[in-house]
Amino acid sequence: MDNIKYENGVLYLLDQTLLPNEEVFITPKTKEDYFEAIKKLRVRGAPAIGIFAAYAMALLDEDKAELKEYLDSSRPTAVNLSWATSRMLKAYYDGKSLIDEAIAIHNEDIDMCRKISEYGLSLLNDGYGILTHCNAGALATSKYGTGLGPLLLGKEKGYSFKVFTDETRPLLQGARLTSYELEKAGIDVTLICDNMASIVMKQGKIDAVLVGADRIAANGDTANKIGTSGVAILAKHYGIPFYVLAPSSTVDFSCKTGDDIIIEERDGDEIKNMWFEKPMALKETKCFNPAFDVTPNELITAIITDKGIVRAPYKDTLEETLND
Amino acid sequence: MDNIKYENGVLYLLDQTLLPNEEVFITPKTKEDYFEAIKKLRVRGAPAIGIFAAYAMALLDEDKAELKEYLDSSRPTAVNLSWATSRMLKAYYDGKSLIDEAIAIHNEDIDMCRKISEYGLSLLNDGYGILTHCNAGALATSKYGTGLGPLLLGKEKGYSFKVFTDETRPLLQGARLTSYELEKAGIDVTLICDNMASIVMKQGKIDAVLVGADRIAANGDTANKIGTSGVAILAKHYGIPFYVLAPSSTVDFSCKTGDDIIIEERDGDEIKNMWFEKPMALKETKCFNPAFDVTPNELITAIITDKGIVRAPYKDTLEETLND
Repeated sequence: MDNIKYENGVLYLLDQTLLPNEEVFITPKTKEDYFEAIKKLRVRGAPAIGIFAAYAMALLDEDKAELKEYLDSSRPTAVNLSWATSRMLKAYYDGKSLIDEAIAIHNEDIDMCRKISEYGLSLLNDGYGILTHCNAGALATSKYGTGLGPLLLGKEKGYSFKVFTDETRPLLQGARLTSYELEKAGIDVTLICDNMASIVMKQGKIDAVLVGADRIAANGDTANKIGTSGVAILAKHYGIPFYVLAPSSTVDFSCKTGDDIIIEERDGDEIKNMWFEKPMALKETKCFNPAFDVTPNELITAIITDKGIVRAPYKDTLEETLND
Repeated sequence: MDNIKYENGVLYLLDQTLLPNEEVFITPKTKEDYFEAIKKLRVRGAPAIGIFAAYAMALLDEDKAELKEYLDSSRPTAVNLSWATSRMLKAYYDGKSLIDEAIAIHNEDIDMCRKISEYGLSLLNDGYGILTHCNAGALATSKYGTGLGPLLLGKEKGYSFKVFTDETRPLLQGARLTSYELEKAGIDVTLICDNMASIVMKQGKIDAVLVGADRIAANGDTANKIGTSGVAILAKHYGIPFYVLAPSSTVDFSCKTGDDIIIEERDGDEIKNMWFEKPMALKETKCFNPAFDVTPNELITAIITDKGIVRAPYKDTLEETLND
């Protein structure tokens, strides 16, 4: 699924906020357009945000250092965003072609996702029941994706999985994006509410959990979409392996532990009002709307990166594998 | 909050499907009206369904045995429903006044909720952070409620709690009903999505979890709104007490364990389409929509009934306390 396309000097972005009902490509022109697209989740998923921001750095005629600062502030938790803008800024100072650099970032991502998918698939058997949370598929990256990569690659290779996807409130990425993407790929997918993860595990329907990551600390603590830590606790309770799949750029060695990761809080209207015909609570009712939570390393069976499969103790193994 | 009112020969029911935007009372006339109101959750919460069905048995001019069978089939998991209709049928065979019997069931429920609330409050301290799931308040019963009873009674006695309510997908009872009811009662309430229960527990915001029950087996295994078992697993993980509050009629000694409890499966459209402006997944996407799950007894710190506080081993203590 090509959600970000660069063709004849124009960048096209599939507006994910309109899925699954409409497939609309937008063409951002100004830095405000790019900022808004990231902020409003028209583009989402750490790798996709990085690619998108890289094209912004290449295509916008602005002071590049200021532009990097500006874009970075649109989504503070996504480490790939500042990773990509830093790389673009360096390319600028080095006098390289910025559009070539953005295209390189894009192609490297496709390559990375393929590797993650291969490693991930090696841990799964044909016929497995899989639970996933949020969207870490092709829509969040480029081709294959991370969390969904082994499923999409497995499909190509003739595996049949039975996938359950949490709808992932409040933004419903699991419903709008994951179930859409898997359905389109011809994979057996069943949509459930977030609070049904426990019963499908208890009923023996799940053999493995696959999720993506927004940021991984040096000790393996993993920030991902809100609710991921709860799924990990359930998986541990039921004795089901819990796998995190992410490009190596998601590991932030400057974060020692998950405590160093800032959790973005979003507007409570996303809980009460967004998507609904009518408000679901009174105007005066407070909401708490953290966008991410941190899954502690001891709940993670393995972290699957493009450089290999990493297992505890992550404090040692992450550095060994990734800086190899 | 008077959600069921019997006045001058007419039964009024607050239609909970319209909350929080509209407060509308309906007046069911035929057995189909009563059946539909239960099935469509215009009345919900095990005790409230029992009261409502008792009035149906009294007010409808039908063959009472057939009517009982018919009403019981509207919501198979709610044991209070068949409990109330059985009692009404017995009163009929005994030649008693059926409307007096229905009013007695109603008044006994108010009394029972008060006792549950007193016992529950004895386990909480002023200032506690509380997590609740679904709605087990006055809207689910009559005055005070069960799961929310200690909070509503505590408010009257000057306690201040900080309550977090899971929105409770797909029917959003926590958003539409619990946050509404607590807000109206002047209690500090914050609405969260179901998948945020883990982060609020981790952040130390929760000192106790309070939930209701739809059916409790002889060994303490408890069927309650979908997602309850997941909350219980999280509470155990974080070392937070998990309390089930329910009238003694909710205990079904004919169910030895939770495995004997039939779990109602509801229409997948409740997940994809209900409440939303536009569908949240493709038409062809399958949904799995169980209405309840079973929380195993070992995850329950105490079961709080109108006859007292019961703790493990429930197999012995439930029978001792309830049949005392």
